[in-house]
Amino acid sequence: MKHCRDPTSHNQSEQRLRWVFKLYFHTHTETMAKKLVIIDTDCGIDDAQAIMMALAAPNIQILCVTCVFGNATVDNVCQNVLTVLSVCERGGIPVFRGCARPLVGANNLSSDHFGTDGLGDVIKDRDPNWEKKIQREHAVNAMIRLVSENQNKVSLVALGPLTNLALAVRLDPCFPQKLEELYIMGGNMEGKGNFTLCAEFNFAMDPESAYVVLEEFLCPTYIAPWEYSCRNGLTWEFFEELINQDAPAARFMKMITSKCWAYSKEAMINKRDVYFGSCFVTYDAYAVAACIDKNVVMESIQCPVRVELQGSIARGMLALDRTNELKKSHSVYVLTKCDIAKFSQLLMESLRQPFKK
Amino acid sequence: MKHCRDPTSHNQSEQRLRWVFKLYFHTHTETMAKKLVIIDTDCGIDDAQAIMMALAAPNIQILCVTCVFGNATVDNVCQNVLTVLSVCERGGIPVFRGCARPLVGANNLSSDHFGTDGLGDVIKDRDPNWEKKIQREHAVNAMIRLVSENQNKVSLVALGPLTNLALAVRLDPCFPQKLEELYIMGGNMEGKGNFTLCAEFNFAMDPESAYVVLEEFLCPTYIAPWEYSCRNGLTWEFFEELINQDAPAARFMKMITSKCWAYSKEAMINKRDVYFGSCFVTYDAYAVAACIDKNVVMESIQCPVRVELQGSIARGMLALDRTNELKKSHSVYVLTKCDIAKFSQLLMESLRQPFKK
Amino acid sequence: MKHCRDPTSHNQSEQRLRWVFKLYFHTHTETMAKKLVIIDTDCGIDDAQAIMMALAAPNIQILCVTCVFGNATVDNVCQNVLTVLSVCERGGIPVFRGCARPLVGANNLSSDHFGTDGLGDVIKDRDPNWEKKIQREHAVNAMIRLVSENQNKVSLVALGPLTNLALAVRLDPCFPQKLEELYIMGGNMEGKGNFTLCAEFNFAMDPESAYVVLEEFLCPTYIAPWEYSCRNGLTWEFFEELINQDAPAARFMKMITSKCWAYSKEAMINKRDVYFGSCFVTYDAYAVAACIDKNVVMESIQCPVRVELQGSIARGMLALDRTNELKKSHSVYVLTKCDIAKFSQLLMESLRQPFKK
Amino acid sequence: MKHCRDPTSHNQSEQRLRWVFKLYFHTHTETMAKKLVIIDTDCGIDDAQAIMMALAAPNIQILCVTCVFGNATVDNVCQNVLTVLSVCERGGIPVFRGCARPLVGANNLSSDHFGTDGLGDVIKDRDPNWEKKIQREHAVNAMIRLVSENQNKVSLVALGPLTNLALAVRLDPCFPQKLEELYIMGGNMEGKGNFTLCAEFNFAMDPESAYVVLEEFLCPTYIAPWEYSCRNGLTWEFFEELINQDAPAARFMKMITSKCWAYSKEAMINKRDVYFGSCFVTYDAYAVAACIDKNVVMESIQCPVRVELQGSIARGMLALDRTNELKKSHSVYVLTKCDIAKFSQLLMESLRQPFKK
Repeated sequence: MKHCRDPTSHNQSEQRLRWVFKLYFHTHTETMAKKLVIIDTDCGIDDAQAIMMALAAPNIQILCVTCVFGNATVDNVCQNVLTVLSVCERGGIPVFRGCARPLVGANNLSSDHFGTDGLGDVIKDRDPNWEKKIQREHAVNAMIRLVSENQNKVSLVALGPLTNLALAVRLDPCFPQKLEELYIMGGNMEGKGNFTLCAEFNFAMDPESAYVVLEEFLCPTYIAPWEYSCRNGLTWEFFEELINQDAPAARFMKMITSKCWAYSKEAMINKRDVYFGSCFVTYDAYAVAACIDKNVVMESIQCPVRVELQGSIARGMLALDRTNELKKSHSVYVLTKCDIAKFSQLLMESLRQPFKK
Repeated sequence: MKHCRDPTSHNQSEQRLRWVFKLYFHTHTETMAKKLVIIDTDCGIDDAQAIMMALAAPNIQILCVTCVFGNATVDNVCQNVLTVLSVCERGGIPVFRGCARPLVGANNLSSDHFGTDGLGDVIKDRDPNWEKKIQREHAVNAMIRLVSENQNKVSLVALGPLTNLALAVRLDPCFPQKLEELYIMGGNMEGKGNFTLCAEFNFAMDPESAYVVLEEFLCPTYIAPWEYSCRNGLTWEFFEELINQDAPAARFMKMITSKCWAYSKEAMINKRDVYFGSCFVTYDAYAVAACIDKNVVMESIQCPVRVELQGSIARGMLALDRTNELKKSHSVYVLTKCDIAKFSQLLMESLRQPFKK
Repeated sequence: MKHCRDPTSHNQSEQRLRWVFKLYFHTHTETMAKKLVIIDTDCGIDDAQAIMMALAAPNIQILCVTCVFGNATVDNVCQNVLTVLSVCERGGIPVFRGCARPLVGANNLSSDHFGTDGLGDVIKDRDPNWEKKIQREHAVNAMIRLVSENQNKVSLVALGPLTNLALAVRLDPCFPQKLEELYIMGGNMEGKGNFTLCAEFNFAMDPESAYVVLEEFLCPTYIAPWEYSCRNGLTWEFFEELINQDAPAARFMKMITSKCWAYSKEAMINKRDVYFGSCFVTYDAYAVAACIDKNVVMESIQCPVRVELQGSIARGMLALDRTNELKKSHSVYVLTKCDIAKFSQLLMESLRQPFKK
Repeated sequence: MKHCRDPTSHNQSEQRLRWVFKLYFHTHTETMAKKLVIIDTDCGIDDAQAIMMALAAPNIQILCVTCVFGNATVDNVCQNVLTVLSVCERGGIPVFRGCARPLVGANNLSSDHFGTDGLGDVIKDRDPNWEKKIQREHAVNAMIRLVSENQNKVSLVALGPLTNLALAVRLDPCFPQKLEELYIMGGNMEGKGNFTLCAEFNFAMDPESAYVVLEEFLCPTYIAPWEYSCRNGLTWEFFEELINQDAPAARFMKMITSKCWAYSKEAMINKRDVYFGSCFVTYDAYAVAACIDKNVVMESIQCPVRVELQGSIARGMLALDRTNELKKSHSVYVLTKCDIAKFSQLLMESLRQPFKK
């Protein structure tokens, strides 16, 4: 049997050392090799923003983008990703289609947070030949292959339901140990949900996959929960400045947010507003920003976590186990405080694409 | 059939008016009639403190104390209540034995937070004839009878698992509508528990009863959740001053907290410390204080709530439904900010008993 | 504390001896004292039949009838019981109102199996003063009182949801030990339900109460599950003969079954027909018959049982633990084979009331 | 998107016609093309027997064997399959390693029903180079590839936990529609389990996968539940005759059953004995026999089914929905009555391998 490296040897102090080292390295070295990244996405508007941020980062090399259902059907997600890459003139990055539905699928939820197509329902000139531009290999197999070819060098950034990741560890139990790091946008910290009463959207859409990933991915894991983005939200003035930049990416972002209620600050009060006040929050970009530059994260909680599977109101909720009630040996980093200045700068730069070469 | 008053007519604006009126009344009138109160308790150390606070309040008349399992067996609880009343020379207040176990009892939890006997395991001269001092009527029947005899005049203060209250509404569906107000110490607001991973002690001990009470008690309801007490904790210096007063009640409190780890600020780090920092927190007294004087409460959230019954880690968790996801018509007040000066004063006074007449 | 008799001393071999003794006694003694019985019912048509069977039995003295919601509201049930007693000229038997809803009530089921009023919606001359004929004491308190006054002499026959019984053991933990025997119509044996996919009506209506009763009632317990009645059904010819007898009770039964689809053999195929074929099945009478004469029961399985509370399709299902997976010490008798001749005779006699004195 | 053939067109009457046709065809034609079969197995002793039966069937061509955890670890299962193929001199059939653990894995069950290695812990000369004989492709990908290459021609026979099948439909949503037929050994019909209180082993080991397969595999599906094998068990005399045949396969079977308590008729009473009496039951062979020759199945129930995921005692239980409570459009065949003579003959023949060519 192909035995994985002992996950317990991938221990916490080792992780911390690595982080410290990398922070140093990152700060002091200009000639650093690029970070290899796979982005797994259910490409809605905020995923589009997050992908653009990764595309704009000089220290990031995107190996591929893998698609999953979520903000829209997986087919819409594929098209959305192709569109974003095209706007940024980065069509060479391979795109893989992944799962079309949750791991078990006992609940039946859907969303039109960002319109039916996930990008605000405003794009008219969709490419009729998009399917030919999608790689034939399944996203999960592609993930496994690329990570196996680049062991301990790939950072995986997950911006949607975690279905592809859960399948990857089932097909290759060593997959998590081959990762350099895992970044997740998803989950929540305080029992309040933005989709169901107690659960955040990405986790609520596939609680079983979230459970599997957080129980079995023993690599260094950074979670940007809902509260992280909401507590570190930006002003609507910043949003206006952001999308009114003179560049194709900014114009694209302005277009797709133009008719989307989620980007209208006058819109009906939503849950975020009730809990955190009105502000501009581009969820997925927070996870990508942490991957690009760890200094963007100013504070985090290191502790074991678990996802509730059985609850009638709490199904899909993420729970932090700060007092080690569950006797788990693995801890993750739950991000809590963001350097908003650094984050804003990353956002601004991301919409100036395509860059001249 | 004895039809209850339409609960929907007991509406929210009416409630608010009543509160406003009472605040006014309470502030400006010296000759106010005493508030009739039933205390339902699983008498541990903080319940003892809370009962003493109620005994000391000049505007409160305690109709009876009803006992329930929780911090100790219901028999220990009965003895503890008799002891507290005896220390304060208020032995005339009737004490009723209630439920010995949770409504359904599918989980099997126990606690020695305040020692095996609930009062720190230091009391030696227990009364061997205590059973004769307990009323023969069951606590639940006594509650129903006393509230029916004093319709819309009785405030019920629940300091333990809510089993007696759940049974009361089953035996008399109109019981909640006959109450003036309900005060509960229990539950939590942010998905973090002090007993199980996600649930607070009183709710975790009997989630079904907590569910029943919060779904069916449509009277004005004030919940002092775990976070309320923790976020409004007092200093250990205050605690020293409190228990070192020269009065029987203070000496009693000093004795029962003397060997209890929960009252040792040097003790092992507990969950409260992890989340809120080290401080002196006497949970149940916060609910009693709100009943004595509404001005002690500086802020609260008014919203529907629900208790999770099905969860594997979230069973017993209280969830606030601030965006009305559940379409419930009834809201409760979840207390969030306390006037610590007023609260401290009530505590100080409570340990100067028995008062000279 | 009032300690209950040790339930483990109420052991299985003792139970078996008692049964053997009673069978002998019952067969050979004419001068036997009457068996004291309390009937707890959600009086629908088959409950009416069952009550009449108990009224007709010369060896049975009915102490009282306690009412519970189920086939109809508890108020309708009260009226139905009064009507049945009146038809049989046994108005002297006290009737108590019990619980109007399930113990926890997290599900929201209802039934019109026997019409809205539970007795086929054909009775026109309802007594407008019926409420005065209902005792003032709550059914649960009455049960506890009567059983305590006649310790180890009362057989309790439960024909509806087990809510009253669950409350009784909460209010008096010794209640089960004071019972002579418990007979229950309810539950199922083979994972097939007649109300939800996997659960029988009485248990599905209040799974928590069924759970409590089957975990905590350690007295000799006889369960007549759904399959027992269906597998021992009678012919529609027998039914015709039964209701066409020349007596008020028969005429009453003919009237209330006249427009009820459940008593129309030509009616739409129901679940019973799918599983067991078409026949006349009067559920509750099977439990009463076992109480009247143990010889009616030809075979039973003695084993521990448990009710599923958590299931999404199996909630309320009864499971037999014949291989002692659950390590429970208490077993019940699950009835499987009925002496149909004896049972038919009891039915026939029951509809010849009122009897001349 | 690769759209699957409309599953609703794969309708029930079409299925029935096909069956009828094939029965006719099978009976009257000698020159029939061989049936292409994939066997998915957690190879314990009865799986070994079942595989041998398939190997012996002249009308079956085994495309591959895919392995899954269950009776032993997936690595042991791989070795067991290689051993069985080697005994029968059919080493050319490719073997693929599949999943090592359940889809979600929230429960943690294990079994030593057939010894630690799944084949009775008696094999000593294990091949140290076995891993080289396992194909490099993952079982799930191999399944998808082979079924896609032979659309509507492959029968899939699943003898273990259904994890590989659940993954296959996640990776290729059209996978079920490309299957000719699906045969499953697993589940139960009457709420009684052989592994947990209410669930059968294969389903209890991975309830989520069983749920996914029975909700999403809309191809013709034949389930041989636990009761089917138990109700159609063979005598221990037959077993003696079976394993004492003069052939390598029989000698192998005699060896691996020699020290296994499950094959000792004098062994401790097990659940099967309690419910069905003592007999020789070789579970998995019943599913293979149905695939080889539909005439072996004398009776079946056609209805929708569902697996319970949430239950505390019923988790993993299979429920038959004969009255269409769940409003599902897809039905499966649940086998109930077996032609024991035909089945015995298939068993006898299966142990005469390797066959002379």
